[in-house]
Amino acid sequence: MSDELTNHIASAFDRDLEGIQAQIMKMGGLAEVAIMQAATSLETRDEELAQKVRRGDAAIDALEEALNEEAARVIALRAPTATDLRVVLSVMRMSSNLERIGDLSKNIAKRTGVLIQMQPIGSTAASLRRMAREVELMLSDALDAYIQRDEALALDVIERDRDVDQMYNTLFREFLTFMLEDPRNITACMHLHFIAKNIERMGDHVTAISEQVVFLTSGRKPEEARVKEDRTSSDARLSPELDQDGE
Amino acid sequence: MSDELTNHIASAFDRDLEGIQAQIMKMGGLAEVAIMQAATSLETRDEELAQKVRRGDAAIDALEEALNEEAARVIALRAPTATDLRVVLSVMRMSSNLERIGDLSKNIAKRTGVLIQMQPIGSTAASLRRMAREVELMLSDALDAYIQRDEALALDVIERDRDVDQMYNTLFREFLTFMLEDPRNITACMHLHFIAKNIERMGDHVTAISEQVVFLTSGRKPEEARVKEDRTSSDARLSPELDQDGE
Repeated sequence: MSDELTNHIASAFDRDLEGIQAQIMKMGGLAEVAIMQAATSLETRDEELAQKVRRGDAAIDALEEALNEEAARVIALRAPTATDLRVVLSVMRMSSNLERIGDLSKNIAKRTGVLIQMQPIGSTAASLRRMAREVELMLSDALDAYIQRDEALALDVIERDRDVDQMYNTLFREFLTFMLEDPRNITACMHLHFIAKNIERMGDHVTAISEQVVFLTSGRKPEEARVKEDRTSSDARLSPELDQDGE
Repeated sequence: MSDELTNHIASAFDRDLEGIQAQIMKMGGLAEVAIMQAATSLETRDEELAQKVRRGDAAIDALEEALNEEAARVIALRAPTATDLRVVLSVMRMSSNLERIGDLSKNIAKRTGVLIQMQPIGSTAASLRRMAREVELMLSDALDAYIQRDEALALDVIERDRDVDQMYNTLFREFLTFMLEDPRNITACMHLHFIAKNIERMGDHVTAISEQVVFLTSGRKPEEARVKEDRTSSDARLSPELDQDGE
């Protein structure tokens, strides 16, 4: 193949890749908004905003599908080199993480509709909003790290996921206490606990995105990025950490 | 390119694909075992078996990584046609579903270690084992449907996921009742509820695998395969269905 043709194909691939990356950024932006609006609707008991989040998830799902089709088209059409292929495949993985973050936000918004009809449980809604805010900032940094191929920033995001896990562990104990105090708190606490778990899981998805960035920039996997403390032995009754590597 | 060369490449791709599909079947087999051993260890309160499940997850994770690397290698090396590419990409998606089923089984096995130290809650452990058994059978059929490109069987598996969701909904209400009856049941029920949720989520992953089969065989997406009843409006206090499209 002539050099000219090679260059032509190469630049064509780069243009395709730019298009795919633009879509990922758009998806990431929608996911960030979904996280914050879901948590805010819970704290402010704003059913209208919760509805907006529930409806908005369809746009994120549509973007993932379009992105996967475009990525498959590019691979089939350009037959990229192993390195370029790795980039395209990493984008497909990232899009599935973002799609799940959208699902989890939607689920939080569904529970908001139910929780609005019950008594608030202490200041847990505010704690959940702070937790969601931290995850949103992590996602924003993870996307920047991807675009700038900034491994240090990606590793920093992975590190910060521990704070989110810690927030979850604290909330888990709070909910348990509220339930033991008064059985009438049980149903609300079950829903709030699910919300906390969903936010903690969003953090895991953001971590997975950051791990993709580390892999792309350095070719190595971040050494067991999601080491979770497990206090099971010392405190078996309260062990929320039990399934933190789940999903 | 001469026909001979084309055929040569084609058959080389087919050999690669057979290797990849063999790995997927191996992964699926390990996931099936993990599901059943996790649920059995809970019912029989067998910590040794639970430990086995926790240790066994590493093998499933290793298979996923090997499979993704092999798939990427095949795509880069063989530059498959759009149709062949779709098959390879679907295998990568399926492997990530199987990897998550392994994680969820591991998490159930972790909770088993904790629950063994508590009083059993009615016959819920037996119900959970029956639920897990149903998911295991669905997974076995989904893998057969994939190998035989049997769309009817895949659609049947998708249909059966509704029974699993129904089992989850029933258990959710049981746990709530046990907690309201006696606060001393709360901690055990929180763990058992997580286990029920994990099994329900395994069913969703098996459904996702079946949807891949439908897509491969017919090129069409099964029309919203996971329509869940949502009794929120009629029964807002008990609404486990709330996040069944999550993860």
